[in-house]
Amino acid sequence: MKIVCSKQNLFNGLLIVSRAIPSKPSLSILDCILVDTTKGNITLTGNNIDMGIETVVEGDIIEPGIVALDAKMIVEIVRKLPDSEVTIETGKDYKTTIVCEKAKFNIMGKSGDEYTYLPKVEKESSIVLSQYALKEIVRKTIFSVGENDNNILMRGELFKINGTTLTVIALDGHRVAIRNIELKEAFGDREIIILGKSLNEVMKIISDDTEKEITISFTQKHVVFEFDETVVVSRIIEGEFFKVSKMISSDYETKMIINKRELMDCIERAMLLVKEGDKKPIIFNITDTKVEIMISSSIGSMKEDIDIEKQGKDLMIGFNAKFVLDALRVIEDETVEFFMVNPKSPCFIKKEGEESYTYLVLPVNFSMVN
Amino acid sequence: MKIVCSKQNLFNGLLIVSRAIPSKPSLSILDCILVDTTKGNITLTGNNIDMGIETVVEGDIIEPGIVALDAKMIVEIVRKLPDSEVTIETGKDYKTTIVCEKAKFNIMGKSGDEYTYLPKVEKESSIVLSQYALKEIVRKTIFSVGENDNNILMRGELFKINGTTLTVIALDGHRVAIRNIELKEAFGDREIIILGKSLNEVMKIISDDTEKEITISFTQKHVVFEFDETVVVSRIIEGEFFKVSKMISSDYETKMIINKRELMDCIERAMLLVKEGDKKPIIFNITDTKVEIMISSSIGSMKEDIDIEKQGKDLMIGFNAKFVLDALRVIEDETVEFFMVNPKSPCFIKKEGEESYTYLVLPVNFSMVN
Repeated sequence: MKIVCSKQNLFNGLLIVSRAIPSKPSLSILDCILVDTTKGNITLTGNNIDMGIETVVEGDIIEPGIVALDAKMIVEIVRKLPDSEVTIETGKDYKTTIVCEKAKFNIMGKSGDEYTYLPKVEKESSIVLSQYALKEIVRKTIFSVGENDNNILMRGELFKINGTTLTVIALDGHRVAIRNIELKEAFGDREIIILGKSLNEVMKIISDDTEKEITISFTQKHVVFEFDETVVVSRIIEGEFFKVSKMISSDYETKMIINKRELMDCIERAMLLVKEGDKKPIIFNITDTKVEIMISSSIGSMKEDIDIEKQGKDLMIGFNAKFVLDALRVIEDETVEFFMVNPKSPCFIKKEGEESYTYLVLPVNFSMVN
Repeated sequence: MKIVCSKQNLFNGLLIVSRAIPSKPSLSILDCILVDTTKGNITLTGNNIDMGIETVVEGDIIEPGIVALDAKMIVEIVRKLPDSEVTIETGKDYKTTIVCEKAKFNIMGKSGDEYTYLPKVEKESSIVLSQYALKEIVRKTIFSVGENDNNILMRGELFKINGTTLTVIALDGHRVAIRNIELKEAFGDREIIILGKSLNEVMKIISDDTEKEITISFTQKHVVFEFDETVVVSRIIEGEFFKVSKMISSDYETKMIINKRELMDCIERAMLLVKEGDKKPIIFNITDTKVEIMISSSIGSMKEDIDIEKQGKDLMIGFNAKFVLDALRVIEDETVEFFMVNPKSPCFIKKEGEESYTYLVLPVNFSMVN
């Protein structure tokens, strides 16, 4: 095999597919990137058990062929090359030379025979949205995925298509994140659970461009993301997702409207007093015109008042500070609305009369502090 | 004790003295910053076995007193406070409240009774230079300090004052770094070995300002750095430094003049093939108009030519790539000059006819590669 391409194109392609390379060496062919030029273009592939990525790099094929190259090594070598033409040539026993200007590297490649290509999937249905829109909706929900949860369903995000509405839902045992966006056209109704880990990797590859599109297609076993010159195939999580609609209620006894920035700053200060692994709750004492925010731990205590607008009853309620903060961080509005019933029932952060987001946070027990 | 000062002043002061707080908690009073307002100003102190730092923070003393506060805790709390006035008040049993706008923290302080103040030192002699000049001369030599060397002398830098010349020398068993600068006036001749670790911390506190001065004073046991509102006292290393002048020779058999950037890029590429802990040398094959740079390891091999100017004999010589690179990184010149005798004798990187820098690198044995 012999190819010539620009350092920058090659490097970008290598970075994209290396997102599917296991970060801990598996000491198998999975640590390699496959370079395949037998189908008329330069295709790079990275693959692991959950997800595979394929991308096409612009360049000239002097001699078609296939070689598997250690991903870390080839990425680092190409990164350090001058910004010029790169020639990769594979000889006997997959001995590979990489030449760029006056620099010449020799490394050992491997046969691509054992390499698992991306599965050929029969797409049943698909949706199209901008890369930016996908990135935003995932960013604003994925923190609620239970990454290492025993329940595999919690390790994924539900993508629910209903006419022109895409709803994305993530939850662990303590909170739920729900986001809705409108698609440009109606697609067939469908529900699918995509592995959070795979989504995270796709987010790192796609752009922030509102003009660039991405197509997401579904099959029984896989989800396929297609954008630019790249294809990502990920396993889907089989099973039925939690009935989130049953958890959601619009009844409340206490509604608090508060400045988001002030509340975030206050919670961040309060968290200084919580050591990692420590489960000290942050307490909201909600009265007519202010919320008194308190925390007390082995390190010390903190108290701070923030002005609010309130409707309904006074309430004292405790939260895991991090869960409230995670939700606040991804809300765009300057003021946020908390809807609460009592110290034992879920608290909803949402905008009344609007559907774009709902964050549910379960309260935690607390003992009174002075 | 009760003080009021701006968040920014307080935070800057805390950051400065926390440089002397052990990074691993010692579970002793050394983990604390001492706040002492009994001498008419707000003095913060951080102290460890090797080094102590004292700085004065602008602010109002409402009630004089002394308290020791856990350094990590107070730094993080003040970091997160709004940019406003901060009040610190210590009550019974050193219970301390920190108030800023509507935020109020309670933490436990400690008595300052056990705290070791900075030693009162009798300055015997001193030099004055700009903070920038000190920062530069240390940055360009300190990488040669043998940080964990069994020989305590190698863990320090020699500061040698000779009339108006300040020479700073650092060395480990494989290389020597020497830098000279001219001071504005002559100071008494003196040699002193300053702990590399302490110098590193001082570098992080002083500014890049060529206008701001720093005074370095010496005693039998200590070196004192005085700048802005801050005093740093460090132990000095006792003993006689290595006779570096005996290692330096101006005789050579081969002189190579080479573009620094090209050589650095090439060595950085070559280092990709060296695994950590692996001692594969980089080989320079110097002939009339070019140097062929080669490396060969278990991972692969690399070869690259760079154009040079040469005087004297052809030479093939091997180096630890990192040691050459460390020196090149701190040389300001576009082209560098290598002076060599044979594959066993020290190589000097310096500018002929100039005294500002000399880097000595010992060559290493190598076996020929194809």
